[in-house]
Amino acid sequence: MDVEDLSASQSLVSRQRRRGRETTTKTVRAPDYRHLDHPFPAQKMFSDDEIAAIHDTALRVLEDLGMRVLLPEARDIYAAAGARVVEDMVFIGRDIVSSALAGAPRTWRLRAPNPQRDQTYAQGRMIFMAGVGCPNATDRDRGRRPGSLADFVESLQLCQAYDVIHMLGPMVEPQDVPVHLRHYATIEAQLAHSDKPLFLFSRGPAQVAQGFEMIQSALNLTDDEFAADVWVSTVINTNSPRLLDNPMAKGLIDFARARQMCIVTPFCLAGAMAPITPAGALALQHAEALAAITLTQLVNSGCPVSYGGFSSNVYMKSGAPAYGTPEHIKMQIGGGQLARHIGLPWRTASGAASNTADMQAALETTMGLWGASMAHGTLIVHTAGWLEGGLTFGYEKFVNDVESLQMFAELCTRPSGSAAEIGFDAIAEVAPGGHFFQTQHTMDRYQTAFYAPIVADLNNFGTWTENGSRTSAERATDVWKQVLREARAPEGAAERLERLRPVVEAGKAAGGAPAMD
Amino acid sequence: MDVEDLSASQSLVSRQRRRGRETTTKTVRAPDYRHLDHPFPAQKMFSDDEIAAIHDTALRVLEDLGMRVLLPEARDIYAAAGARVVEDMVFIGRDIVSSALAGAPRTWRLRAPNPQRDQTYAQGRMIFMAGVGCPNATDRDRGRRPGSLADFVESLQLCQAYDVIHMLGPMVEPQDVPVHLRHYATIEAQLAHSDKPLFLFSRGPAQVAQGFEMIQSALNLTDDEFAADVWVSTVINTNSPRLLDNPMAKGLIDFARARQMCIVTPFCLAGAMAPITPAGALALQHAEALAAITLTQLVNSGCPVSYGGFSSNVYMKSGAPAYGTPEHIKMQIGGGQLARHIGLPWRTASGAASNTADMQAALETTMGLWGASMAHGTLIVHTAGWLEGGLTFGYEKFVNDVESLQMFAELCTRPSGSAAEIGFDAIAEVAPGGHFFQTQHTMDRYQTAFYAPIVADLNNFGTWTENGSRTSAERATDVWKQVLREARAPEGAAERLERLRPVVEAGKAAGGAPAMD
Repeated sequence: MDVEDLSASQSLVSRQRRRGRETTTKTVRAPDYRHLDHPFPAQKMFSDDEIAAIHDTALRVLEDLGMRVLLPEARDIYAAAGARVVEDMVFIGRDIVSSALAGAPRTWRLRAPNPQRDQTYAQGRMIFMAGVGCPNATDRDRGRRPGSLADFVESLQLCQAYDVIHMLGPMVEPQDVPVHLRHYATIEAQLAHSDKPLFLFSRGPAQVAQGFEMIQSALNLTDDEFAADVWVSTVINTNSPRLLDNPMAKGLIDFARARQMCIVTPFCLAGAMAPITPAGALALQHAEALAAITLTQLVNSGCPVSYGGFSSNVYMKSGAPAYGTPEHIKMQIGGGQLARHIGLPWRTASGAASNTADMQAALETTMGLWGASMAHGTLIVHTAGWLEGGLTFGYEKFVNDVESLQMFAELCTRPSGSAAEIGFDAIAEVAPGGHFFQTQHTMDRYQTAFYAPIVADLNNFGTWTENGSRTSAERATDVWKQVLREARAPEGAAERLERLRPVVEAGKAAGGAPAMD
Repeated sequence: MDVEDLSASQSLVSRQRRRGRETTTKTVRAPDYRHLDHPFPAQKMFSDDEIAAIHDTALRVLEDLGMRVLLPEARDIYAAAGARVVEDMVFIGRDIVSSALAGAPRTWRLRAPNPQRDQTYAQGRMIFMAGVGCPNATDRDRGRRPGSLADFVESLQLCQAYDVIHMLGPMVEPQDVPVHLRHYATIEAQLAHSDKPLFLFSRGPAQVAQGFEMIQSALNLTDDEFAADVWVSTVINTNSPRLLDNPMAKGLIDFARARQMCIVTPFCLAGAMAPITPAGALALQHAEALAAITLTQLVNSGCPVSYGGFSSNVYMKSGAPAYGTPEHIKMQIGGGQLARHIGLPWRTASGAASNTADMQAALETTMGLWGASMAHGTLIVHTAGWLEGGLTFGYEKFVNDVESLQMFAELCTRPSGSAAEIGFDAIAEVAPGGHFFQTQHTMDRYQTAFYAPIVADLNNFGTWTENGSRTSAERATDVWKQVLREARAPEGAAERLERLRPVVEAGKAAGGAPAMD
């Protein structure tokens, strides 16, 4: 049967549906995207010897070149463990690093307000976070604008609507909320509009302490319960090369004390803030990550801390960061090798440099997603909605990226090769040149057999043209609008917000909490 | 360094370029995309037992259910080998299949008019063909139209321009050339505008015989030279389920006799012309492929024949074929397992159902590309320009897809993890919080370090906006126009066409060659 002859077959589907056969068949398709393991094994980009050499170079960097650590409290902690401190430079011996790594846990529970959203954070798991850290938001109706609390709330509703987004993050920065009050707004919004694992920016000890208190109160946890699991995470970016600033160092210390999760993420752009080679950028990433992980374990041995990296390249003609590039993928995979070398679960990222929701954007993000899979990232960040290298959260791109994530998640379920699934009898039932639309084998399965897209248009050209010749970006506008129209507070949110209110009111009455410089 | 602080770094790149440093550095980047091996190992979607069961089911299908073979000559060949023939049904015993498979070669040379374009056709190699078989062409300037010879010529020039497209195919069908003359036009155009491995449609014995003669004359080959290697390929589609029509059966016979390559490709759409399950569709694909491969080996044992499959699913709401879907990827990977089970190199395909060059199109094609990689397709078809499930060849999509292929090809080159590449000294040279733009390590490498995109725009949002806020589809129009403006006949084309002319003139004088029904 030729491609062009399919119109005949299509009428058969319609006929069978007109007969009302669907009333006799299975329920609609409801795949479980909530808990995923990587569908393919972890890959290598470097030899084991090369990875050992990169690891060793990172140790030499820490020992001989040192890290600049701005926070005196952090320098004191390193010094107490035997590190050499000269002014604000800290030189960390490899024995200190290796004993810290020996105490770091390999797996832990990542809790959510809704226990069904809990995750196991471990090597081999695949946890998706939407595109985060964006100062701006954009959509086709309202255009590009500085991020507001309203945008952040909508991004939460979008994340909540799709199970394949597993953790919340700071998708859009609510720039209309003063910084000393912003943690109230972001925690409250996460609890109001979602029941997924929570995120808190490390903007200094006052905000972090209040954030912990808010979450503990809202979730009604005892001190022991709060300390027993990870209820909130933060991303710690080193300032590459070799600089750990005050709020980041303080965040490492405060999250470690509370046994909440730091996701350590050097941002090493090869050719700019890192050596131009993948191996060199990874050596720097690894050194900085080891320094940060070490600090957490010196503070509180055994506290959960995620290895991480976000190494990509710059485009040398403009100096702008690039994502989803071959070099990005090579460093993702090399990063995964380094994470396995030290035995820790780890965070990587996809991303996009494109300035709009076009083929470039889809290609970059999809390449980064597959790279993250080959790299076996435990947590994969920037998987949906990221544009302009993270400067903007795009609603239409979010919808298209969720399609990509759902399609990838489908690969986690292997098809059966049982005799019933192979269906010799069905093949026998259909004459040469015939079709399978009406075999029992098809009728038993057709409502749940295939992935059902959320934005892909699989109509033929004629129908698509009659429907207005709309691109996937244009159709995505309808999708996110419907999601926002239908968004409802998750079960238990009202109670959580009720318990949260006095903490927030007390904090605000005391004047909020300043960010640390 | 924050994402937003990159503007400072960008000025450093400009400064270093203003100083004219590039005159002292290496040559521009010239990656070799001509010969590629798969960068990742072949993956599994089914257990070995399940693959054995699918293979066994395929053998049962051929033995007990049979294939309908329209061509009497083909039935006679099967019968002579011991197959049971009842009217036009052929029942092929598993002994016949297994002895045929035992004689089929595992690897062969795929020759091109330019020897530097030759390929080794074998498991583990990665050979890309553009999107093929499209009755229509489209671009943003001239719109969608029935394919013409002019469009086919342009598609050849586009394929010739990018080394990552390794083989020619029937990208656009030249509908303005009468079918009985079309093989003259398509062979002539391939030889005039490209020096890559050639393609010939199997439209019956007269066209195939003349096609062989044209190629042998143009390339100035003796009979022995022509028979010693593969100089031209054809795709053989079975008419699923279980039907082999006249021109396809005759093509198998004629290509086998001439020891040219048949790429056997059942087109099994799960839920339509094949069972709705991946395992069932693959069982049917495998049965049909084995029947066709067997015929070639019965004709001429040891002749080169590629296993192949193009199994995807239909969208049950419309009956239209879908590509790049999770089910497509699962069947790609299962198809690769079946190819390895019988030990033959094989052809798979990416593709796109999208009706325009949008995010859906990029997502579908990129997903199919990675699926083909996981499946270790020797030849991967429909990798560039395919739209509407193959009904249209899109110029802008072609350009964006070539970007995707080039990025993927870059992954075939592993980065070095040598001490020089790690660059401890470069890390030592840069102060904490500094940048690597001007280290010697960077200066030695910056002109060739990273993949240089052909259509991706890596400028920041401001510059992109100043440049007209153009999508990757819009920018691709400029790219293909420039390629066509700069297209030149490859070396030796004039001589090849000179040798070809008398054969074509004789054929046309004799009234051309009719297609077979």
